[in-house]
Amino acid sequence: MQTIPAKHGVAVRLEPGQAIAVVNTHGTQVVDTWAFVADDLTEVMSMEHSRVENGRMIPPIGGDFFTNRRAPILTLEADESPGIHDTLMAACDRRRYERLGCTTYHRNCADNLAEALAALGVPPQPTPSPLNLFMNIPIHADRSLGQGAPVGHPGERVVLRAKRACIVALSACPQDMTPINGENRMPTDAHYEILPG
Amino acid sequence: MQTIPAKHGVAVRLEPGQAIAVVNTHGTQVVDTWAFVADDLTEVMSMEHSRVENGRMIPPIGGDFFTNRRAPILTLEADESPGIHDTLMAACDRRRYERLGCTTYHRNCADNLAEALAALGVPPQPTPSPLNLFMNIPIHADRSLGQGAPVGHPGERVVLRAKRACIVALSACPQDMTPINGENRMPTDAHYEILPG
Repeated sequence: MQTIPAKHGVAVRLEPGQAIAVVNTHGTQVVDTWAFVADDLTEVMSMEHSRVENGRMIPPIGGDFFTNRRAPILTLEADESPGIHDTLMAACDRRRYERLGCTTYHRNCADNLAEALAALGVPPQPTPSPLNLFMNIPIHADRSLGQGAPVGHPGERVVLRAKRACIVALSACPQDMTPINGENRMPTDAHYEILPG
Repeated sequence: MQTIPAKHGVAVRLEPGQAIAVVNTHGTQVVDTWAFVADDLTEVMSMEHSRVENGRMIPPIGGDFFTNRRAPILTLEADESPGIHDTLMAACDRRRYERLGCTTYHRNCADNLAEALAALGVPPQPTPSPLNLFMNIPIHADRSLGQGAPVGHPGERVVLRAKRACIVALSACPQDMTPINGENRMPTDAHYEILPG
């Protein structure tokens, strides 16, 4: 297993048929997740297209996430967690923390994505709306949105299998000003494992 | 009042303080809506950032839509409709209709956006996730998403006031294969009016 260090990001290339298991090692860590088609980085996993194609907030087990060109890119093959993930919320970024009152730089998922891509030699990309694994955003009847603590348990895994050659980026969300990474507001490491085709 | 012809798009430039009233003339027409900052088209109205900043699916009356750089761009100044609008679903595009079974070209909101921008001399842009005015996407308890008919009434207006100089694009959605534009599946004209600052 490989580490996603707390508050940092990683990116890996998956070939078609390979999968990535994302592990919520401590049970309370949100992992922002993106996928870019390897040979055309402008084609990306899209939450808004996936919602249309699935008719659901997230795909069922065995269902696919789709790109902004409506092609399947990752299959949600398995999910050991209670299945509470978010597809509504933008990745946190520098300005998010400024608006929350930070006066100095705060690590954030958007910069983690850029750093992770840079480590693979990939230039900065616009930040797609992420798949926020393990993130608990309750949707209330009046369509207000909560900021809940994750509801899963240590060691639970989500397996995403590639239908295209793609670059998958993961960010262990640095948010420590809301309970989104647990009531203790303490971002932690998470882990991942590449699974063969 | 200006016409948004059925199944077509329009774009207009708003100066700060000006507003656009979007009129659901026949009560059943979804109007996909986008906004681009006039002097930097890569800064766009973002549903995922607006959801975070408002803590709601759409802003309250008097609240703002935000850009992908978390700056207010349009204020939801007034809404005569029941307030059922969608921020979850991607704009329809050529591939959406192919996946629904179309074997010939079907007009679509993504191409309407490109045509509307071209009429202002603006080159094609990536299609941001739209504000789907008057679109009724019920969210069920199991997080499945419906495709409902609009619940408003003829002549109801939504007023969006510009906080930045911006290009606002509107598409009278051509969808006639689902009930999203009414049970009759008959896209209609809508209208708009520019209001002074």
